[in-house]
Amino acid sequence: MKDQQMDTRMICAGLWPPVATPFRPDLSIDFAAFLAHSRALLDDGADGLAILGTTSEANSLTLAERREVIDALLADGFDPAKLLPGTGACAIGEAVALSRHATSAGCAGVLLLPPFFYKGVPDEGLFRYVAEVIAGVGDDRLRIYLYHIPQMAGAGWSLDLIARLIAEFPETVVGLKDSSGDWQNTRAIIERFPGFAVFPASEAVLSQAMALGAAGCISASANVNADGIARLLAAIKAGEGVDEAQAAATAVRNAVTAQPLVPAVKAILAARYGASGWDTPRPPMVALPDDARKALFADPAVKALL
Amino acid sequence: MKDQQMDTRMICAGLWPPVATPFRPDLSIDFAAFLAHSRALLDDGADGLAILGTTSEANSLTLAERREVIDALLADGFDPAKLLPGTGACAIGEAVALSRHATSAGCAGVLLLPPFFYKGVPDEGLFRYVAEVIAGVGDDRLRIYLYHIPQMAGAGWSLDLIARLIAEFPETVVGLKDSSGDWQNTRAIIERFPGFAVFPASEAVLSQAMALGAAGCISASANVNADGIARLLAAIKAGEGVDEAQAAATAVRNAVTAQPLVPAVKAILAARYGASGWDTPRPPMVALPDDARKALFADPAVKALL
Repeated sequence: MKDQQMDTRMICAGLWPPVATPFRPDLSIDFAAFLAHSRALLDDGADGLAILGTTSEANSLTLAERREVIDALLADGFDPAKLLPGTGACAIGEAVALSRHATSAGCAGVLLLPPFFYKGVPDEGLFRYVAEVIAGVGDDRLRIYLYHIPQMAGAGWSLDLIARLIAEFPETVVGLKDSSGDWQNTRAIIERFPGFAVFPASEAVLSQAMALGAAGCISASANVNADGIARLLAAIKAGEGVDEAQAAATAVRNAVTAQPLVPAVKAILAARYGASGWDTPRPPMVALPDDARKALFADPAVKALL
Repeated sequence: MKDQQMDTRMICAGLWPPVATPFRPDLSIDFAAFLAHSRALLDDGADGLAILGTTSEANSLTLAERREVIDALLADGFDPAKLLPGTGACAIGEAVALSRHATSAGCAGVLLLPPFFYKGVPDEGLFRYVAEVIAGVGDDRLRIYLYHIPQMAGAGWSLDLIARLIAEFPETVVGLKDSSGDWQNTRAIIERFPGFAVFPASEAVLSQAMALGAAGCISASANVNADGIARLLAAIKAGEGVDEAQAAATAVRNAVTAQPLVPAVKAILAARYGASGWDTPRPPMVALPDDARKALFADPAVKALL
C-alpha cells in the first residue's frame, strides 16, 4: 500500500450536481443541451459535476451511452478532474469497464452503486463486489465514492461495511454520497469516519452537515438551484448569512421534492431553457403529470428560479 | 396487425427450468459445465430452458456475456425453439439488443423484467418501456413473456397493465412468469386472461395452477428436480398419482426455499456434479453458509436428489 502522502489527487468537495440528461423526441441523448446545462451549472458555482447518477437516469442509458456522456464532456473541453461519473452496474464486468474508462480519462473519481437487482444480499457479497471492481480496474488512480440509495437499490453500504472497505482500500474508497434521506445515517457516517468525503444528497441538511465535517453536497435539486446552493456553501464558509441562505435553499428543495423528483427537476429545466427535450424522461419514468406540474410552478421558490 | 391464425409459433408450455450458471474460480462462466447441465435438464424431462433468469444470475452477467450464453447453446446444437432467455435490462437499448439477438436466432420467446432501478414508477412508464422494446426489436417473431418478480425488481406487471399490453400487442405479449410467490395473483392472472401462458415460479402450486389453465412452470428448484417436476406434470396430464407427485415435488421445493434460494440450488448442483464451480456465485451473492448447507443436506428430500 502506498503512503497516503503520495496521493496527489484532490478529494472532491463542495457542490457537485448530479446532472440531468435531456433527450430528443426519439429518446436519444441531446448532447448539445446536456453540454450547455453542464456548463451553466459550473458557471452558477458548482465545483464539479456528478454525472450519470439517479437524476441523470444513468440506469436508463446503455453502457455505451454512459461512456459517450463522459467522452462528450471531455471532447467539449470539460476538466476531467471536475467529473465524478456514476459507474455502478449489476454486473461487475460493466462496472469495471466504465470505472476504468473514467479513471483513465482522469476523472476525479467514480460514484459506485451497489449491485441493485438482488435483495437481502450480505455485506460480504457487497465487499467482494467492490474488491472485484477495484481489482478489475487495476489502476491506482481509481477513487471510489460509495453511492448509498437503499430505497432505489434495495442494497446499501452499512457502517460496518464502510469501515471494512476503508480499512482494506484506504486510498481508493474515499467518500460516500448518502441519498438515504436519513439524517441520522449521514451524521453517523460523518462522525465515525473523519476525513472520509461524505456528501448528503439534500441541501436541506447542508449547514448541519458541513458543521460536522461533510465534504459538500450532491443534490438533484442542484440542477435547478446551483447558485442558491453555492451561495449557501459560501455563507457557511464565511460564517455569515447561513440561516437565510439555508432557508432559501431548503424552500427550493421542499418544492421540488414535493413532486416526483426527477420529472420535477426536468420540468423546471424545460421551462428555464424553453426546450421541451428536457421534459421527456426515458421510460419507465414519465413527464411530470399536469396536477403536479401546476403545484410545482405555483410554488414561490420555484417561480423565483425561472 | 396480423391475423392470429398466421402465427405459426408454439406458445411455451410445460417445464422450463431457469438454468443456473456455473463459474470458474476467476468468476468467468464455465460454459462446458453450463452446457452439460442444460442437456441434463432436457434429458430429465424439461420441455425447454428459461436461461438468463434470476437463478441464472443473469443480472450479474454483462450484456456481452448474456449474448454468449445464448450463442454457446446454439453452437452446441440446442434447438432455439426450446430456449426462453431473460432479456430484461434497465436501459431500453440493452433490452432491445438482447431481445433482437434472441428473436433473430429463433428463440421461443424472451422473458422480460420490468426496468428495475427506479421504484414507484407508473404503469404508463412500464407500458411505454415495453412498447419501446417491441418497436426497437422490430421483428414480428418476437414473443414476450412478462417476468413478474416485484420483490427483486421493485416494479411489476399489474393486472390492468397486463390487460393493456395484451390488448395492444396480442401477438407479441403472450405470457407471464409469476415469481411473486402470491398465489392469489397467479390465480387472478390465469383466470382473467384465458390463453395467456402463465407460469408460476413454484412447482408447489402446480397441480392447482394447471387445473385453472396455467401453461407450466419456471422454477429455480427445477435445476435440481427436473425429473420430479416432469413426473408431476405427467401425472396431472394423466389424472393419476397427482397427490403423491405433488407432495414429492413440494418437499424438494420447501427444502430448497428454506435456505437462500440460488446458493442452495448451486450447492446441490455442486454436490451432484462433484464440481466446485457450481458453488461459486458471483458477488453480490455468496456461497451457501455452512449452517444453511448442513440444514439443506440433512433434508431427506434433498438427500434423495443426490
